Amino acid sequence: MTELISVAAAADLIARHMPDFGSERVGLVRAAGRVLRQAVRAEHDQPPFDRVMMDGIAVHWQATPPSSYPLLGRQLAGMTRQSLASEGGCLEVATGAMLPLGCDCVIPVEQLQREGEAYRLINGYQPARGQFIHPRASDCRAGAELLNSGIVLGAPEMALLAANGYASVEVGMVPSIAIVSTGDELVAVDAPIGEGQIRRSNDIAIAAALRQHGLDRLSLVHVADDETLIGDTLARLLAQHDALILSGGVSMGQRDFVPAALAAQGVHRVFHRIAQKPGKPMWFGVGPRGQAVFAVPGNPVSALVCAIRYVRPALLAAMGMTVPAPEAVCLDAAADTQPSLTCFVPAHVQSDTHGVLRARPVPARTSGDFASLPHTHGVIELAPASGPAVAGSVATLHRW
Amino acid sequence: MTELISVAAAADLIARHMPDFGSERVGLVRAAGRVLRQAVRAEHDQPPFDRVMMDGIAVHWQATPPSSYPLLGRQLAGMTRQSLASEGGCLEVATGAMLPLGCDCVIPVEQLQREGEAYRLINGYQPARGQFIHPRASDCRAGAELLNSGIVLGAPEMALLAANGYASVEVGMVPSIAIVSTGDELVAVDAPIGEGQIRRSNDIAIAAALRQHGLDRLSLVHVADDETLIGDTLARLLAQHDALILSGGVSMGQRDFVPAALAAQGVHRVFHRIAQKPGKPMWFGVGPRGQAVFAVPGNPVSALVCAIRYVRPALLAAMGMTVPAPEAVCLDAAADTQPSLTCFVPAHVQSDTHGVLRARPVPARTSGDFASLPHTHGVIELAPASGPAVAGSVATLHRW
Repeated sequence: MTELISVAAAADLIARHMPDFGSERVGLVRAAGRVLRQAVRAEHDQPPFDRVMMDGIAVHWQATPPSSYPLLGRQLAGMTRQSLASEGGCLEVATGAMLPLGCDCVIPVEQLQREGEAYRLINGYQPARGQFIHPRASDCRAGAELLNSGIVLGAPEMALLAANGYASVEVGMVPSIAIVSTGDELVAVDAPIGEGQIRRSNDIAIAAALRQHGLDRLSLVHVADDETLIGDTLARLLAQHDALILSGGVSMGQRDFVPAALAAQGVHRVFHRIAQKPGKPMWFGVGPRGQAVFAVPGNPVSALVCAIRYVRPALLAAMGMTVPAPEAVCLDAAADTQPSLTCFVPAHVQSDTHGVLRARPVPARTSGDFASLPHTHGVIELAPASGPAVAGSVATLHRW
Repeated sequence: MTELISVAAAADLIARHMPDFGSERVGLVRAAGRVLRQAVRAEHDQPPFDRVMMDGIAVHWQATPPSSYPLLGRQLAGMTRQSLASEGGCLEVATGAMLPLGCDCVIPVEQLQREGEAYRLINGYQPARGQFIHPRASDCRAGAELLNSGIVLGAPEMALLAANGYASVEVGMVPSIAIVSTGDELVAVDAPIGEGQIRRSNDIAIAAALRQHGLDRLSLVHVADDETLIGDTLARLLAQHDALILSGGVSMGQRDFVPAALAAQGVHRVFHRIAQKPGKPMWFGVGPRGQAVFAVPGNPVSALVCAIRYVRPALLAAMGMTVPAPEAVCLDAAADTQPSLTCFVPAHVQSDTHGVLRARPVPARTSGDFASLPHTHGVIELAPASGPAVAGSVATLHRW
C-alpha cells in the first residue's frame, strides 16, 4: 500500500507532470470559448477617429450658442471626413460617424428643432465643448497590448479580436481524450440490465464536465475486468490519445487491474491514493509519450469529484489557460470533517442579498449516492480538522 | 419619440411575448448542456441491490468476531448473487458487487490478513453490523422523480440519466437565430479598412455570448444602411429563423431604418427605448409567425449589455430553461447612478476570503469603449437613484 499524499500535493504533482498540448491557428468564429495562446495588439487607434456618439449635429462650440445653426452638410457613418465650411453652421451627424473637420461639439437630435435649412436649440439647451465625441485613441493606441495569452475567449474578447482585424488567432489545442470505464458489472444505457449490474454513467458524467469547458475531443470506451483485454485496450488508447481518464479498478481489490496494467504499458506512476474522501484511490501517471493518465475510482461521486478537482483544471492549464482560483463560499450549516482526510461535500450554492455566496452542504450518504447531486452546484473542499466545519466558516467551492 | 420604459418592464414584456421554441428528442451523449423538457424517473431502486462499498470480505456479523473466517467463495461486481454457505465463513467481495445472501457486514481488505484458505482480522479490528453496505433503494425507489423539466443537463444530471436507462431524452429545441449588423461604416474582419470605417464586431460578440449557453444555431449577416436592402434582407431572415437580433440602426437618426423596416415586414413593435444607460434605444417586437425580434444599439458595449441582460435570458427561458436569478454582488467602490435611468457598469468580480462576491466597477468611458471589457466578468445593474451607489452596497450581476 502506498502512502497517502495531500490534496495540494496531488494537484501540484499533476501540474508538474502535465504535457503542453500546444496551439493551433483557427478562424475567428471558431475561436469562441477557446484559450488564447498569443498576444493581441490594437490594429489601429481605438476609436480610429474622433467618433460621433449621438445622432444630431456637429458644430464649432461657442461660449454663447447662436440662435440657429445653418445646415451645411451631412456626415454619416462610413463616410470620409467632411468639413464645416463656416464656423457658425452645422453638419448633420450620425452615431458612429467621423467628427467633421472644424467641429468640436455634438448636439443630440433630442435637443434640436429643425427650421427650414437650419437647426435651433430647444429650451435654452447649453452644449458643452467636446460633448458626445469619443476621441481618437482614447480607448487605446495602435499597437497597445489588448489581450494576453491564457484568457478564455468570451464575448468581450471576441469583440476585440474582430475589431482589430484578427481573422484567425492562435489558441490552445484541445487534447484528444479517452474516457475508459472498467467493470464487469457495467452495462450500456440502452442494454437490458441483469441482476448485480448497473448502467455505465461515470464516462457520461465526466464527458459532460469536460465538454462544458470546451474539451470536446472525447472517446468513451468500456472494458471488462480482464487483464489481457485491459492491457490491449490501454496500448491502443495510449497510441491514439493525449490523455486517458480511467474510472474503476484502482482500489486495493483483487480485480483492480488498472495500476498494474498501466505500469505494464509503460505508464510511469506519479502517485496513487490521496488523503481525501471520497476519491482516496485516485491514481495519476505519465505515459511513454508524455500522455497524462488519470485513474479515478468507480464510485460515481468519487469519480466526478476527482474529475472536477484534478483532471479538468489540469487539462485546461495544459491547454494554456490561466485557470482562475476557486471561489470561496460561506457555509450555511455545519459540515463533517475528518482528522486526516480532506473532505469533499456536495453543496447547493446561492448568493444572498448581501452578496455572500452561501453553500448548503448536501452530504452524499455514500460515494455511490448521486441521486441528490442534481440539486447541488459543486463540492466544497474541507481541509483535515479535528472538529466539524461550523456554519459561517469559509470553504473552497469546485463547481461541477 | 416613444416613452422610456423601465428595465423590469422591458424584461417582463419580452418574457410575455416570447414563443415556446418547443422540444426534440436527442441521444444521451448529445443531450449534455441542453435544457431538459421532461420528467426523469428512477428506472429501478438505487442502488438496485445491497451494494458492497469496499474491497474485502462479506460476513455474517457476530458480536464477538471469530479469530478467523474460512473463505467460502467470491462475489465480484457484475456476478449474480452468491450465498454464504456457513455463518462463520466469508466470501471475498469487490466494490460494486451485490452483498451475498446471508451477509450483513463488509470488512475492508486493509483490516485483513490472508491465512491459507481463511481471513483473520488484524490488530483487534471490530467490525460493525451493516458496515460498508449501500442498502438497496437507500438513494431512491424505482419510479421516484429524479429530475424536473427546466434543468440544464450538467455532469450530475447526465450521470442520473445514464444510470436510469435514458438512452434518449426530450430537450428544448435550440432556436435558429440570425444576428444582423447594420451600418455602412462596418467592414469585415479580413477586409481592408478605410477612413471612417470600423470592423464588424457586435455580431461576433453576441454570437459568442449565445454560443457559450448552447445557442449555436446562428447565422451572421451584414446589411448596409439602405432601406430596400434592409427590407429584403429582413423578409428573407424572418422566413428562415425563429429569432432575429439586429444591431445598429435603432436610434433616432435619419439613417436608423430598422424600426420602420421591421414594421413594414409585419413585425409588431412591443416597445422601443428603455430607461437605461447604455442601451437606451433597444427595440423589441414579434414577427408574423411569432418570431422574437430584438434590435439593439450599434455601440459595442450597449449591444453586448442588451444581449446579456434581455436577449439571452429570454431565449433560454423560451427553450424551457428555469433561468436562475442573477447573482448579488457587493460593490468594492462607489459607482455613478442616474436619477431616471438604470445604469449598467462593467465590473471585475472575485470572491473574497469571507465568501463575499466583490465587484470592482470598471466604467466604460463611452458606450463605444470596449478595450477594458476583457478584464471584467459582466455588468452590474444599478437602479435609478439620486446619488451614487456607495462602496459596500449590493447590486445585481449579469455575467458576460
